[in-house]
Amino acid sequence: MAKTCRVSFRPNNVSVRVPASTTILTAANKTGIFIDSLCGGDGVCGRCRVIVREGAVTGGSTDCFTHAEIQQGYILACEARIQSDVLVEIPPEPRLTTGLEFAESEVPYLADLNKLIRYARLSPLVRKTYLQLSPPSLDDNISDLQRIEQALARKIPDQSFQMGLKVMRRLPHVLRQSNWKVTAITGHRGPLTEIIDIEAGDTTRPNMCIAADVGTTTICCHLVDLEDGQTFGQAAKYNSQVSYGADVIRRIIYASQSEANRNSLREAMVGDLNELIGKLLSKHRMGAKDISLITVAGNTAMIHLLLGLPAENVRREPYIGATYHLPPFRAAEIGLQIHPRGLLYCLPCVAGFVGADTVAGIFATALSRSDEVRMFIDIGTNGEVVIGNNEFLVCASASAGPAFEGAECTDGMRAVPGAIDHIRLLDPDNVLTYSTIGSAPPIGMCGTGYVDIIAEMLRVGIIDKTGRLQPGASDSRVRKGPNGELEYVVMLPAQSGNDKGISISQSDINNILRAKAAIFAASSVLLNALDMKFSDLGQIMVAGAVGNFLNIENAIFIGLLPDLPTEKLLFVGNTSLAGAKLAALRDSCYAEISRIASSTTYYELSTDPTFMDEFVSACFFPHTNVELFPTVTAALQSEKERQHAR
Amino acid sequence: MAKTCRVSFRPNNVSVRVPASTTILTAANKTGIFIDSLCGGDGVCGRCRVIVREGAVTGGSTDCFTHAEIQQGYILACEARIQSDVLVEIPPEPRLTTGLEFAESEVPYLADLNKLIRYARLSPLVRKTYLQLSPPSLDDNISDLQRIEQALARKIPDQSFQMGLKVMRRLPHVLRQSNWKVTAITGHRGPLTEIIDIEAGDTTRPNMCIAADVGTTTICCHLVDLEDGQTFGQAAKYNSQVSYGADVIRRIIYASQSEANRNSLREAMVGDLNELIGKLLSKHRMGAKDISLITVAGNTAMIHLLLGLPAENVRREPYIGATYHLPPFRAAEIGLQIHPRGLLYCLPCVAGFVGADTVAGIFATALSRSDEVRMFIDIGTNGEVVIGNNEFLVCASASAGPAFEGAECTDGMRAVPGAIDHIRLLDPDNVLTYSTIGSAPPIGMCGTGYVDIIAEMLRVGIIDKTGRLQPGASDSRVRKGPNGELEYVVMLPAQSGNDKGISISQSDINNILRAKAAIFAASSVLLNALDMKFSDLGQIMVAGAVGNFLNIENAIFIGLLPDLPTEKLLFVGNTSLAGAKLAALRDSCYAEISRIASSTTYYELSTDPTFMDEFVSACFFPHTNVELFPTVTAALQSEKERQHAR
Repeated sequence: MAKTCRVSFRPNNVSVRVPASTTILTAANKTGIFIDSLCGGDGVCGRCRVIVREGAVTGGSTDCFTHAEIQQGYILACEARIQSDVLVEIPPEPRLTTGLEFAESEVPYLADLNKLIRYARLSPLVRKTYLQLSPPSLDDNISDLQRIEQALARKIPDQSFQMGLKVMRRLPHVLRQSNWKVTAITGHRGPLTEIIDIEAGDTTRPNMCIAADVGTTTICCHLVDLEDGQTFGQAAKYNSQVSYGADVIRRIIYASQSEANRNSLREAMVGDLNELIGKLLSKHRMGAKDISLITVAGNTAMIHLLLGLPAENVRREPYIGATYHLPPFRAAEIGLQIHPRGLLYCLPCVAGFVGADTVAGIFATALSRSDEVRMFIDIGTNGEVVIGNNEFLVCASASAGPAFEGAECTDGMRAVPGAIDHIRLLDPDNVLTYSTIGSAPPIGMCGTGYVDIIAEMLRVGIIDKTGRLQPGASDSRVRKGPNGELEYVVMLPAQSGNDKGISISQSDINNILRAKAAIFAASSVLLNALDMKFSDLGQIMVAGAVGNFLNIENAIFIGLLPDLPTEKLLFVGNTSLAGAKLAALRDSCYAEISRIASSTTYYELSTDPTFMDEFVSACFFPHTNVELFPTVTAALQSEKERQHAR
Repeated sequence: MAKTCRVSFRPNNVSVRVPASTTILTAANKTGIFIDSLCGGDGVCGRCRVIVREGAVTGGSTDCFTHAEIQQGYILACEARIQSDVLVEIPPEPRLTTGLEFAESEVPYLADLNKLIRYARLSPLVRKTYLQLSPPSLDDNISDLQRIEQALARKIPDQSFQMGLKVMRRLPHVLRQSNWKVTAITGHRGPLTEIIDIEAGDTTRPNMCIAADVGTTTICCHLVDLEDGQTFGQAAKYNSQVSYGADVIRRIIYASQSEANRNSLREAMVGDLNELIGKLLSKHRMGAKDISLITVAGNTAMIHLLLGLPAENVRREPYIGATYHLPPFRAAEIGLQIHPRGLLYCLPCVAGFVGADTVAGIFATALSRSDEVRMFIDIGTNGEVVIGNNEFLVCASASAGPAFEGAECTDGMRAVPGAIDHIRLLDPDNVLTYSTIGSAPPIGMCGTGYVDIIAEMLRVGIIDKTGRLQPGASDSRVRKGPNGELEYVVMLPAQSGNDKGISISQSDINNILRAKAAIFAASSVLLNALDMKFSDLGQIMVAGAVGNFLNIENAIFIGLLPDLPTEKLLFVGNTSLAGAKLAALRDSCYAEISRIASSTTYYELSTDPTFMDEFVSACFFPHTNVELFPTVTAALQSEKERQHAR
């Protein structure tokens, strides 16, 4: 049994018991305390500053602190690993969120990879190199391009360089105008290194990249400095393609109807990305020319629609994409507004319904390096499940719908400031406690909030195991909504940041029920196919843009995750984006991601006769087979007895 | 001493003595007999058919003949090598020229290389591969692109494939529409093989290429079948850039004045190429889509101007080009009208004034594989001289002007039908014999004609050693021309195919004098720099688009070539075009040409203090230093004595 430690937080006066070596950020998240972490746990933004008042921690870089601060006990919550019972004081500033639009929770495996980024040499996919060339003479009369290539070869050895005609046409002038002092922007294009551009003078800083996760429902971008790996900012929005269809299938059908339709879908997503890029650039006072690279992860259909590739065969048996491995393109070729000659890398996909987002997740969670067999679940509009270790990787995909992303629910919203991300009920009539992202007044609910509220409603008897709202459970909060449907009022208008309050309808509950059932059924069928049980898994890692952290107990309680000891279950945040970021920063990561895509086996659920049975069985809270969820069954039983006893 | 054989030609009744193993075509050329050879000696057009009546020859393919023809003694003149005294009958048809615009003489070294093309497997830079794919299924659900790549890898092993976005977007439709039977067009792009296009069905034939020589004065194209190496046709025209300046320097100055000017020059040359391509296509009833490749050789400035690269630094000390090694581009990127996705390969250059035409010549003449040290001279608007063997290659360049290409002379013309290419004078008043290209009525003179007429005028005393026309030499033929300048009437109006006759003016003679002096001075200075003499050279190979063949004795007589035994001097035709063609047909040739460009050392004549002295000394016929030309001096002396004796 691993050693556990008690962590107490001031001024909140809450405490939690965690395994030794847990980071303070993870521990804080477990209590529901939100510590601002701009970089999403990369250890680079220096915003998750806390003070350790008592007890022992290890790790934590000193870059972000003054000497005096370090003596006071200041440390980064994302890096400090707890070694004994500790008392942590959270200074006022990191609890405030100012303009933060989107935050990831800490990703433990990712943190190890991030160490690589911080302490090893970065080798970004696109780099800038300042060259001070000696001018030509009759004795040294190689061509302008050769002069550049020879100088670059000294700094970037063992590469074949190539340059496009447009840059060649400018090259002689730029060299002479700059007095032979230039910056070369170079990018990997397969076995070649393209000299993307030559700019006069030293323009090596900034050299920024956009790492993007293009989801069916949500698009999220990080602005990352390719020179030091620092994440400058993040921005997200719903995918504008939603107006052409909420799910992938409807969009594919629309796109396949005409060339114009296909273009409309491409332009919608490119427009979203450009909007987010523009926002990040203006916030950080940079120009499009400062971004020389964009890396994109997303599901196979989204990657197809982004590039304008025909996707109609993805939706039809046998579900074939145009391609799963994509060479780099010039970003401008699809209309992305970064450096006009900057490169776009789409991470590779596995199959028609297992995309680059999953591959990025496999990489970011180090699943492919694990000795023990683990499971990786990516909660999105499609739920992907991967089982494997350093010897094999098998994956499957099931349509879950966008409910966990807050879409298609009455008061659903993305995990942005004002979203209720955690909630506890005292009883059917009273909320005990809740938190919102950014501590803003509540205006809606995000995925992790829905997981909590459903678990709580189930616990206090507002819904039954089929998910049906119980009209008599609360006179004040269970009522008929505007369209005649039953709903549960989570927040009254007076308590909320909008003027209509926040509620969850019967349809919302049904959406969540089907979503969790699809993901649980996919996990079960894939395990069965491998002749394994949940208990055989060393760990289950859950990813998704659903909130800052997921209450694992509640996820088990509603039957989204299997009834395993909670230390075996880990919420890892948006690993799709993490993978895209790592690929941008280290070419070896990009190469490893490509290898993962090639070596992952796709398991087709649609032809497995047991999938529909598993899905129907899972359309209960937590499950029709109560033996699968013994601790939930016991908890519900004792709750019932407690209520009866009152 | 090598064995020599006497070759007699019927019905012309002329004979010549040649070394054993000379081809019949070479022997015919030595006599001035023109045998039609559409392919320029490639042994593929089957037009240089002759009948060997007596004596022994070896070699010669049988593909072009019927069984009966072979029994009659039919053989290809370009392939049959003479082994004893022979009697050759030239049947009527190959003496006729029908629509032939441009012909090369045979290139002996080239002929050996052509053997490679004909008898070894071709590996063109762009190839077409027909693929019959198995349709996908749930058990075989790789992506469309991967299906193509796996099928291609079985036919083209050890390659990394890459495909552009435009083709990917069409790929799923083309595969299904064609019922999984498609043709892949693939091209080498550095270490990658690009899948240039995927076409429905079997479109492997035709797969044509344009090999082009873009000279300052003349542009010449061959239409070549990439599947079997056959040359289908050829077309040439003067470079339309001439209207922006006759020489390279004036054009570079014009181009550097504005972006618009640079575009005008590019468009002029691209327009010329498109005109020639269009002509060849319509003649051979093909479409632009049938040409998937264009290979281009030319001097450094022409390659720059063709691609729209700034060339102003090429003309200024230290004479630096933007680049000498060029990756393949999409031909459409500069406006060339072949397959819209077809590739353009420009052969590599060595320096600002030693271009791809010279490199192509070094390769085509096998200079870089020779054990003995040889010289290669390319007569063009710039004259390039290369000295080397399989251990070293050194080159230099001198401005010669376009006189040898027939430009800037009163009645000069390209080596096309109607050009006098050979002429002998009986005495100052009478022409003994002459020939024209295509045996058409004479309308002007090409380079080889000028070499002959100057030698003849010198021999019979119409000009003196300074090149000055002697007013008293011929009452009927030396006269004042329309602009008051002295001229020699070569053909009276009644004898010529135009209505004004053909003459050579004092200015024309001066142009030729300076051109030959520049080339001879370049050869001399480069030899001196290597501490060598002409007599140390194993062979001198002379190339250039100056005519079907060059009368070597006359070239020595006027001091263009050094006074060596004629068997050491060899006219090898348009080797620039030959190199471009070989590069297109075999990727190993392209690679070898790139190696040659990298390993050739450039020698700058402009900074050699002896060059101007050598040039001035060479501005005499044959030379101020008569000891350099003992046989010419002796011949002139005996001619003088003969005239005195009359």
